[in-house]
Amino acid sequence: MTESVHSHIDIALVHFPVYNKSGEIVTSSVTTLDVHDISRIGRTFNVGMFYVVTPLETQQKLVHRLMDHWLEGYGSEYNPTRKQALLNTRVVNVLDDAVADITQRRGERPRTIIPDAKRFPQSRSYREVREALQDDHPYLLVFGTGWGLEKGLVERADIVLAPIEGLNGYNHLPVRAAIAIILDRLLGLGMGAE
Amino acid sequence: MTESVHSHIDIALVHFPVYNKSGEIVTSSVTTLDVHDISRIGRTFNVGMFYVVTPLETQQKLVHRLMDHWLEGYGSEYNPTRKQALLNTRVVNVLDDAVADITQRRGERPRTIIPDAKRFPQSRSYREVREALQDDHPYLLVFGTGWGLEKGLVERADIVLAPIEGLNGYNHLPVRAAIAIILDRLLGLGMGAE
Repeated sequence: MTESVHSHIDIALVHFPVYNKSGEIVTSSVTTLDVHDISRIGRTFNVGMFYVVTPLETQQKLVHRLMDHWLEGYGSEYNPTRKQALLNTRVVNVLDDAVADITQRRGERPRTIIPDAKRFPQSRSYREVREALQDDHPYLLVFGTGWGLEKGLVERADIVLAPIEGLNGYNHLPVRAAIAIILDRLLGLGMGAE
Repeated sequence: MTESVHSHIDIALVHFPVYNKSGEIVTSSVTTLDVHDISRIGRTFNVGMFYVVTPLETQQKLVHRLMDHWLEGYGSEYNPTRKQALLNTRVVNVLDDAVADITQRRGERPRTIIPDAKRFPQSRSYREVREALQDDHPYLLVFGTGWGLEKGLVERADIVLAPIEGLNGYNHLPVRAAIAIILDRLLGLGMGAE
């Protein structure tokens, strides 16, 4: 595989609008660990940009402080693999800002792919989406936090992807684990690797 | 799939003996987040037991305190999915204690499977190991922390598995992300799922 093989694919982690436990639409808190883990996972699978989506200024500042520390400060020398991972991380207010940024950078609006437990007319299997990603159109993989993305966002997705199913009725993967599995299924070297 | 489909597979996260950045053999610190995430990931893929391996008493106490909080204390009501995940988590001194516990519980010594970047005579592909796991012999999947498991441990593994390869020379996945991907490759419902 060449260096730029997945550079037409970006990912976003959305903290608003998402559901809470009671089904209300809320802004979830940014977990700094998610920012680190998902940056590393994205870098491993060679995706382009990782957008952290939150409209809350205090939360945006938190992510910027973390990035400054690891990109410019003491952390950049202490842990250079963390720096490398964060180089392609950006903070935006809303998902549309990520779409606009990609459209400007790539000259084409990205198709959005969102995992969701419900079935939609645009639901596709992992195999189908893996094949779709072989073209060089820009794609944006969108992940929710909390109890899931507001359903209007999902309905407007170009492609809806099945969630990772637990084998025993237990479906409580941390979002960072779900993202790792989904990127491996869609972009990884696959089962034959040894 | 039935409820007990992977109950003949256990997992272990080893904090000693592992390498540090300088290649010395050390005991790495337990990350409580790893305990939570890997418990959830194991539960999702319906594995049997999750062994946290550390010989340090202070670290063992840390894990037990965490488990008490979520299994018995306030946490058990606040977050029952976390409780469910931790029910099959155990702390042991050394990897051999996990092997002995499994041998006693299952009446047969488990075959050990260890991911490692180097090739060994017993190296196998994901596809081969996924097929091997279809029998009902007990297996123990062993994961290292820090800069990887001491090589004597890997040499004694029954099966060595390829690591998750980055697509761009970047190989710094968090261990919890690597475990999620490996369990999905070996035990997941696979690409056709939709």
